Amino acid sequence: MINEGKFGVALVGCGIVGGGTARVLTEDIEYLQERTGIPFYLKYVVDKNFDNARNIGIPEELYEEDFNKAIADPDVFLVIELIGGLTVAKKIMTRALEAGKHVVTANKALLAHYGPELFALARKENVSIGFEASCGGGIPIVKALTDGLLANRIEAMFGIVNGTCNHILTEMTEKGQSYKDALQSAQKAGLAEADPTLDVTGMDSAHKLTILGSLAFGERVDLDSIPVQGIDTLDLYDIETGKDLGYIMKLLAVARQTSKGLALSVSPCFMHTDHPLARVSGAFNAISVYGHAVGHTMYMGRGAGSSPTASAVVADIIATALDITPRAFQTLNFWPDKTEPARQLAPEDIASRYYLRFMVQDRPGIVARISSILSEEGISITALRQKEDRKENIPLVMTTHEAKEGAVLKALDAIAKLDEVIETPVMIRIVEEHPENVI
Amino acid sequence: MINEGKFGVALVGCGIVGGGTARVLTEDIEYLQERTGIPFYLKYVVDKNFDNARNIGIPEELYEEDFNKAIADPDVFLVIELIGGLTVAKKIMTRALEAGKHVVTANKALLAHYGPELFALARKENVSIGFEASCGGGIPIVKALTDGLLANRIEAMFGIVNGTCNHILTEMTEKGQSYKDALQSAQKAGLAEADPTLDVTGMDSAHKLTILGSLAFGERVDLDSIPVQGIDTLDLYDIETGKDLGYIMKLLAVARQTSKGLALSVSPCFMHTDHPLARVSGAFNAISVYGHAVGHTMYMGRGAGSSPTASAVVADIIATALDITPRAFQTLNFWPDKTEPARQLAPEDIASRYYLRFMVQDRPGIVARISSILSEEGISITALRQKEDRKENIPLVMTTHEAKEGAVLKALDAIAKLDEVIETPVMIRIVEEHPENVI
Repeated sequence: MINEGKFGVALVGCGIVGGGTARVLTEDIEYLQERTGIPFYLKYVVDKNFDNARNIGIPEELYEEDFNKAIADPDVFLVIELIGGLTVAKKIMTRALEAGKHVVTANKALLAHYGPELFALARKENVSIGFEASCGGGIPIVKALTDGLLANRIEAMFGIVNGTCNHILTEMTEKGQSYKDALQSAQKAGLAEADPTLDVTGMDSAHKLTILGSLAFGERVDLDSIPVQGIDTLDLYDIETGKDLGYIMKLLAVARQTSKGLALSVSPCFMHTDHPLARVSGAFNAISVYGHAVGHTMYMGRGAGSSPTASAVVADIIATALDITPRAFQTLNFWPDKTEPARQLAPEDIASRYYLRFMVQDRPGIVARISSILSEEGISITALRQKEDRKENIPLVMTTHEAKEGAVLKALDAIAKLDEVIETPVMIRIVEEHPENVI
Repeated sequence: MINEGKFGVALVGCGIVGGGTARVLTEDIEYLQERTGIPFYLKYVVDKNFDNARNIGIPEELYEEDFNKAIADPDVFLVIELIGGLTVAKKIMTRALEAGKHVVTANKALLAHYGPELFALARKENVSIGFEASCGGGIPIVKALTDGLLANRIEAMFGIVNGTCNHILTEMTEKGQSYKDALQSAQKAGLAEADPTLDVTGMDSAHKLTILGSLAFGERVDLDSIPVQGIDTLDLYDIETGKDLGYIMKLLAVARQTSKGLALSVSPCFMHTDHPLARVSGAFNAISVYGHAVGHTMYMGRGAGSSPTASAVVADIIATALDITPRAFQTLNFWPDKTEPARQLAPEDIASRYYLRFMVQDRPGIVARISSILSEEGISITALRQKEDRKENIPLVMTTHEAKEGAVLKALDAIAKLDEVIETPVMIRIVEEHPENVI
């Protein structure tokens, strides 16, 4: 096939992911055209700097500094936004949509913040937004939620959706590295950004939870109302103690439907070692989805990186060119510009089991005092662990039955005020295998 | 919405899966219509016997004994074939397609045997065949291969695609049950058919490998040329010995692209316990797919059962009503009626590591004689295990480096002829983690 005609694509942003996408769209284009029967092709690589494009061998004739020229080209049917960030990316996406171009993006922050507004604009302009690459890298999880699982009422979703955090937690768990050392080695290996804030604070996972939760439950999830805790305050001691108790620590994005609303959270959680997600290690991502008909399904793959993300971007281009994405976008009713704000369970009403650790001075009666405060809040203990030690200050570890977070926080607040308690208590959710309700 | 108009569906066969589908299409129909924006509805349940339909509360007014009446109805746009088997199912599907109706089916045997012919007929009649439910139950694996992973050249696929076998193997592995006992308990639990032949011989897995392999590699896989070995001849001794060596036994459907063609097989395989597939237990299915861009992705879920299969069937109905399946079917070029027969590696040229067991009389020099025959065929041993035992006949277990199956079979043939070797040698493939070639 020849690279001309109305299926031209303009790629904006030729960094890591953009470069990977440009490579697939040049090196593999004949294979892709033949396999799909669609004469799509890369027409413009738009950037201010073409060093990376040159390094990976993208032909110079595609380079274009003027975004407006690219979107004014009637042969361009689709714009790929891969510059990331909020401000400029939003302008680019808006202008592309207003010019009547379909958009494909990997930008989770943008969609988590402005998704409904951008979707509404796309709908007004009769074009679509493909965003498979925004969540879970190359894992086709958006497609699973918007197509393969459509017959289901989704009951719960548990996701390891940040490869940087999963890599760091895996290193801490398997090699006994401190958070700081694990972060540094991840940065050296190119698995963490120089400024890792978005990842390690859990905010990137919250972006993805906003997007995936909105699709799964057909309710518009509000990013700002998700309680988010990252891995940056974790203590290796707790990871190792949890391991002794049969648990693996994962940063989980959780959305569960309850009778009182959607329970949403991003936080480090302990999972039993035999839970399928507990075994997803290193930079891999995985998402467990529970549907009322299908039961438990899980999707695993590389959640980031140049070519896995490119895989999702190119799949979206093909689905858009096939008119599949636009058609789904026009007809289906769960896109976040069409749905109502989620009825969300207040964080204090979310129930969970907990791992608690108290650093205490080893004085008589301290266990009784702590237990009694927990008991007053209706929190019952499943296991207690106090190692014999000659030190004056000792860690006291407890696991609890299911309790509401509000009650646990209230108890911890009271416990923290005890004279013998010398550090802020540690509280980590324990996530049990979600029940399947398959007929 | 009201149940009238051109999106009527005729369901043929109201057994286990048909009943589950009929339930979803009646009990959940308002939710589904609202969520999808498509006014599809169940118009006919076609069967000869409506006992099951009555038992699960499907309204009597949908019952129809005359298939011809259902397909003659202009309001019926799609026929769901859920009767299974080859002869009648083929007639029904053919007549539905000839009547210009789209078809959705869970019938892997039919598609493995007659897929190209039926696809060609559908193409001629300008309709489509949805078959997500034919492989991996509720797991959207067909969608992953025909949509989410389209940017990839698929390098390899490893599937646990038969829940009955995986359940039996899990029971043997975890509870030390014999094959016979595990099969009986699976039958009692409703997880194996009264006649389990298709499942336990590996033939059902071969059907699914034919379908998934054809899609993944864009080459038409020929069912009859897949070497197939089931779990029905397995000895608990080998499962337990493998476990001691750090391996879990799985019945795997394998397709790997090699420079000399597609290496296809269905057989019990040993996998390292830390391979993601090794941990998929019970009636669950999982498929690992390796793409040149995406790397390793894995899809897990219930591979059978009434409502997981219904989940896939209903997703196919929606995708057909949305014109997504017909469009993909018309444009994409890898459907098995459009592709060339697979260039297939001869079974004897497929390379693998092996677990070998020889029952031998404990005489001096027997290890040397066996090793020397293996060595003559270029097969080198990675581990040897001979337990001290007072019995006259002892098992000698070896694992090998990678070797071609032809060489191994030749060696085993010679070894079987040794006087000291008193049983046919046991040969089980060891599947290593497939390398990822992600950029």
